[in-house]
Parts: sequence; structure tokens; C-alpha cells
Amino acid sequence: MSFKPSGLITLTTDFGHRGPFIGVMKGVIIDRCPKASVIDLTHECLVHWPTEAGFWIARSYSFFTVGTLHLAVVDPGVGTRRGLLIILLDGHIFLGPNNGLLAEIAAKPGSIVRLMSTHVIEKYRLPSDSRTFHGRDILAPIAAALVTGRLRFEECGVEFEDYVRDGVKKPEFFSGTLTGQVITTDNFGNLITNISREALGHFRNPRIVAGGEKIELKKTYGDVVPGKYLALINSLEMLEIACSERNAMETLGIGRGASVKIVEGAAKH
Amino acid sequence: MSFKPSGLITLTTDFGHRGPFIGVMKGVIIDRCPKASVIDLTHECLVHWPTEAGFWIARSYSFFTVGTLHLAVVDPGVGTRRGLLIILLDGHIFLGPNNGLLAEIAAKPGSIVRLMSTHVIEKYRLPSDSRTFHGRDILAPIAAALVTGRLRFEECGVEFEDYVRDGVKKPEFFSGTLTGQVITTDNFGNLITNISREALGHFRNPRIVAGGEKIELKKTYGDVVPGKYLALINSLEMLEIACSERNAMETLGIGRGASVKIVEGAAKH
Amino acid sequence: MSFKPSGLITLTTDFGHRGPFIGVMKGVIIDRCPKASVIDLTHECLVHWPTEAGFWIARSYSFFTVGTLHLAVVDPGVGTRRGLLIILLDGHIFLGPNNGLLAEIAAKPGSIVRLMSTHVIEKYRLPSDSRTFHGRDILAPIAAALVTGRLRFEECGVEFEDYVRDGVKKPEFFSGTLTGQVITTDNFGNLITNISREALGHFRNPRIVAGGEKIELKKTYGDVVPGKYLALINSLEMLEIACSERNAMETLGIGRGASVKIVEGAAKH
Repeated sequence: MSFKPSGLITLTTDFGHRGPFIGVMKGVIIDRCPKASVIDLTHECLVHWPTEAGFWIARSYSFFTVGTLHLAVVDPGVGTRRGLLIILLDGHIFLGPNNGLLAEIAAKPGSIVRLMSTHVIEKYRLPSDSRTFHGRDILAPIAAALVTGRLRFEECGVEFEDYVRDGVKKPEFFSGTLTGQVITTDNFGNLITNISREALGHFRNPRIVAGGEKIELKKTYGDVVPGKYLALINSLEMLEIACSERNAMETLGIGRGASVKIVEGAAKH
Repeated sequence: MSFKPSGLITLTTDFGHRGPFIGVMKGVIIDRCPKASVIDLTHECLVHWPTEAGFWIARSYSFFTVGTLHLAVVDPGVGTRRGLLIILLDGHIFLGPNNGLLAEIAAKPGSIVRLMSTHVIEKYRLPSDSRTFHGRDILAPIAAALVTGRLRFEECGVEFEDYVRDGVKKPEFFSGTLTGQVITTDNFGNLITNISREALGHFRNPRIVAGGEKIELKKTYGDVVPGKYLALINSLEMLEIACSERNAMETLGIGRGASVKIVEGAAKH
Repeated sequence: MSFKPSGLITLTTDFGHRGPFIGVMKGVIIDRCPKASVIDLTHECLVHWPTEAGFWIARSYSFFTVGTLHLAVVDPGVGTRRGLLIILLDGHIFLGPNNGLLAEIAAKPGSIVRLMSTHVIEKYRLPSDSRTFHGRDILAPIAAALVTGRLRFEECGVEFEDYVRDGVKKPEFFSGTLTGQVITTDNFGNLITNISREALGHFRNPRIVAGGEKIELKKTYGDVVPGKYLALINSLEMLEIACSERNAMETLGIGRGASVKIVEGAAKH
């Protein structure tokens, strides 16, 4: 499947909303591709941790029109010799630093990974010699060139297998217990884990243990009374721990990185 | 007045800006209606409290082009049997859960309220079986269908009077004192109340009492020296309590839900 | 150079993201100019301090297409008799209160500053008599009129030299030491100063002193090991103090307004 630009670009960064950094990236994109439409995915990823940004992108891209370009910048190594990756998957393009951010996308069946060539970088980069804002100076103009069709995916660099594979860890199964972890939290204080619906499928009657609480699997938040804990498979197809109409992060006292265990509960009768 | 889509959609949620939730809703909308233009109203409504979102929407919609669709998601009952409302008012459409969020809009003269039919929901919903993200899976695709014109307001369900009426409480008048409350605050720490310009009109010389302070009614923030309290009728036509160039929420030590009283001051000479 | 509208408008405010204020300004603009494209520069400027907003705009505008209108609202004097400025520079228009926000833009060679006439304000303002939200009621409709071409820059008011000149202070040189200050911080806790690349050029081997630390000048964050301080010329061409993969604001214990000194280091061999 090749890339036929839809004109849509998503942005995912750890820039937050202070300062003009995201606005300026959009300015550079629209200047070069006035018909582009830029959608913010999120800019509040944990700073300097490419894993969370990658987690969100891998679970969000398929809701966008085929032909969307997903630009991601969580890049503690900006300005050093770390490379840039461009990946084609399911007719979408993904662009970002080679630091694990795009590892999950790169590993999906059918993806084609290329290492951005210095030739392309030098051709499209802004004349500024900034070594701290490649999002504006390199990635934004390359994204614009890809969306206008002036630059094609195939021209971007050689196919590349040796990309950084750090990313979301898989949960581990040992002696009847599956141990995963909290990857991130949302605005409600719900705890989102690295345990997928599939992984949970190995248990007949899974019991979730987190923050010292035993928690039952339900279908939705309103299945328990307000203030009670529950776990559910969320809209991303991942196990999530919540406290109905409360903030589970605060009431359980746990957050990113916390351990979550799944054990087999008593048989249902 | 019927609904002639302008192509504009506003979004109001309690999702905050962490995670890709708003971005993904936009992706679903633009995928189905590429010409739609989506404007964020606010995503920082108090979580799980539909009242604040409803307060903002009722005071904002008229600034948008006739034919705008206003989509709102503050929905602690997501995935349970609470229904969805669609309301036509002044040529605008309002779409959200039946939990009080849209009560003020529904009660306005001329509004037509319909209960979204399960037929329409099943026809337009995404194939995902998520029970936690109806904003993405049900409301976004229905909004897109309404804005393209494929779905008409009249087809959405039966007219419905029995909607949830919880919402912004009216201030109460007793023994010469009007007692209202702080509904929300803004980024400056100004305290925005449920007391309208109209309600204040019953006093010749209103004195405002809040957080233990007696506060005078002025026209604008600069009418007192920095650091002094004032009250004013704000741009939403509601009574607001401020501290000039300071944060009244912090200096008065009060916030959402705090009581605000109006009494008749001494006659002016 | 005259103003040929590109259709782009940037917004810079201190409104934060609570409440519908920014969304409503966009609604007013799009209602009057449906083809306008509005890009948020930032809404998290320090409240009531026009200087930070002006700092960002002066260092961002050139990344946008010529013909962009930059609308800025940090306006503690809203509703008082402070005037509004409109400035033409390099084919861009800048619109905001006369309170120092646009002082740096106004002072650039080639800029033309006009004081917005009451005639234009009265012609375009919304019928609402709000004295607290000129962003919505006056600036948004004037911006829309300029971008559609119905209102021309030359019609907006008389040329005006006597604008408020407060703004970013220049660093001071005394007895071999250049003393500047931290203007703002970003989401990473990097400290952004008022010391430009040019000003630093007066030192052969500059040593930076801030928060009690002596800090070396590097090219990018990854030039030191994580946890070590560095200074660099950032993407805005200004001196920035950082702590690699850490939050310098927290680890140095300093923030906006803090003093930063530059001294001549030992000669390099």
C-alpha cells in the first residue's frame, strides 16, 4: 500500500501548551502546504519519554483517514546523531526520531521502515542552524513536502531494520500471574496499562491486583457505584483501572510505572 | 427554524489535554466529513459534572455561525442506559448525553428536544464495542452525518419532554437577600456566578458579599486599583467577582460552589 | 510592504484553556470570515504580563506565511481607555492593546504603527456592551474584517509614535559582566533569557552564572550527560539554560525574573 496524502497531519509531542512551539510548527507546515489540516493528537506526553507518545499513536492512527501523516516529537536526543524514521503502515505515514517512539508501529506486520537520508534532511530543512528544535526546522518541512506530494515516501531513505526497539514493555507471565504496568493516566485519573484484551484472555475469571486492592473486571464505569474500583477493557483495547466518578490515581496512590497483576479468580458458579 | 449545516462543529468535554481522546474524535469527524471545521470550546470542564459544560455552551453558542453543531461530552454514565439528546435551537444543533448537560438549552423558548433513537445510534456507530468512549464511537460519527446532511435532525428520534433537568441552579431570593453561587472560575481566578444581570436588576444599589468581603459593583477590572476586589457583569452577562490584576480565587480563598449573597446597599446620594 | 491577507490568523493570549473564551473568539472570526484559518500560538502566557506574549510573538511571526495577522490579548487594562495598536511589519499585521505587548514589534526597522481609531472600533465591534472581553467583541471582528479585505490597514487609524514602550528589558553590561534575566520557561523547565546570540558575541569564552551554578555553553541538550547543566543558543536565538533530560527550573530553584550573569571565562588553549 502506497501513501496517497489525504492532507491530514497529526501532531504528538511532549511540548505542553506553554510557548509558541506547536503553533510555529503549524505555521511552517501551512506555509509550505496551505491545504494541510493539522490535528493535535496530544502535547502532554510525559517529557523525555518516547514510550507514551508511541503508545498513543499506535492506538489512535487507525481512526484517521488513510493518507494521514502522523508527526511525533518526543526527542531528548535532538541535535545529536540519532536518526529520523519514516514508516509506511496501512496507508499512513509516521515520522519521528529513532528513539523507540515508533517501535510499536515499526514492528507491526506490513510496515516499511526507512531511515531518513541526510540528503532529504538537507534539502528540506529550514536555513536556521537550530540544533534544539528539529520539529520546526526539519520534521515540519519534510511533513509538508510529503503531504503536498513533492516528496515521496520511497525517496526518503533506505529501508532499515536496525531501529531502536525500546518501547512499551510486554507484560510477563510467571507461575500463573501476569504482571504488567501502568503506562499512563488520563484526565480522570484512570490508570491505563500495557495489558491488552488478548493477554487477559488467558484467564477464565481474571482478578486484578493494583495498589493493594483486588479489583473486578466490569464493562463500564457505571457498572459499580461511585467511589468503587473497577477494571475494564477500555476504548484502546487495553486494561484500565478506574474508580467510578473518582480519581483512581489519587485514591489508589499509584501512577505511571506501577505494577498491575492478574491472577485467576475463584471459578464462577 | 431548521438546521442548515454551516460545516462548523464545536467540542466541549472534560477530557483535558492528556491523551489522544479529542484528537481521535476529530479524526473520526474529518474522516466522514472532510469539509467540517472543528473548534474546541473547552476541554477543561470540571470532570464528571455536566453542569459547567452546559453553562459554557448556553452562553457561547450564539457567537457561532447559524448551522453550527455543538457536541458536548461530560458523561459519567457512559456505557449505561442513559440516553442521548439532540436539540435544535435558533438554527444550532446540540448533541450530548441526557444527564443535565443540555438542560438549560432544552429549556429555552423555541428549542426542540429529541431523544436519539437506537436505530440511528446503531446505524452510525463505529464497529468497535467500546462502552467507555461514546464521544468517539457514537457522537462523532452522528455529528459528521448531520453536518454532511446525510442525517437530518428530524430523523434522529422522537420529540422528548422528559429529559434530565438538573443543571445550573437558580439563585434564591429570601428576606431581601439573593443567594447564588460560584459556578466556575477562569484562568485569572475570577469567580463566575449563577447570578445574571437580570437577577441583579432587582436591587437599586447591590452590595455583593463573598468570602467574608463586601464587594462593590463596577464596570471593568481597571475601575479599581490592582489588588482591590470588585464585582462586575461579565461578557457572559453573569455576575463575576474579581481582584484587579490578582487571583480572586486565591486571595478570597473560595472556589466552585461557594455562596455569593446580594443585599441592598445604602441609597446613593 | 502592504498587507495581502493569507487567510491565516494566530492567537496569543493569557486565557489558558479553561472556559470557552478562545473558542468563542474563533467563532466570531469564522462567522465573519469563513475561509480564515486560526492557529493558536499559545494561551499560557503569564497572566496580566504583556511582556511574555510580546517576546513569543516577536520570535515566532516570521515562521508564518506573509500576510498572516497576529492577534494578541494580554490586557489587564481591558475596558479602560488604553488604546489598541495595529502594526504592519514585513507583510504581517499585529493587533493588540497598547500596553507594551507589541513594543518589540513596533520598534523593529520598517514597522508602521497605527492607533486604532474609535470610528473603526465602533463600526466593527459586536453590539454587546461587554467591557471585559474586547478579544471577542472588538479585536476578533476587526481581525476578520482585515483578513477578508473589507478593512484595510491604512484605514485603521493615524500613524502613532507614542506607544507604550515597556517590554522585554535589554541585558545590562557593567564592568565586564552582562546581566540579563529569565523571561520565561518552557514545558521542560528550560529557562529562556533576554540574552541574545548577538549579546553573547561580546565574550570570547562566555561563562554563564545562574542559580549559584557556573554553566558552560554547549550546542544542544545531548552534549552533556543527563542531569548536568548546560546553556545554549536556542531555536529563538536566545540564551537558554537547561539541565539535560531534567527540569532546570526545579533543580536550580529559579524561574521568571531570575538574574543570569555572563562573564569572560579563562582563555581556551
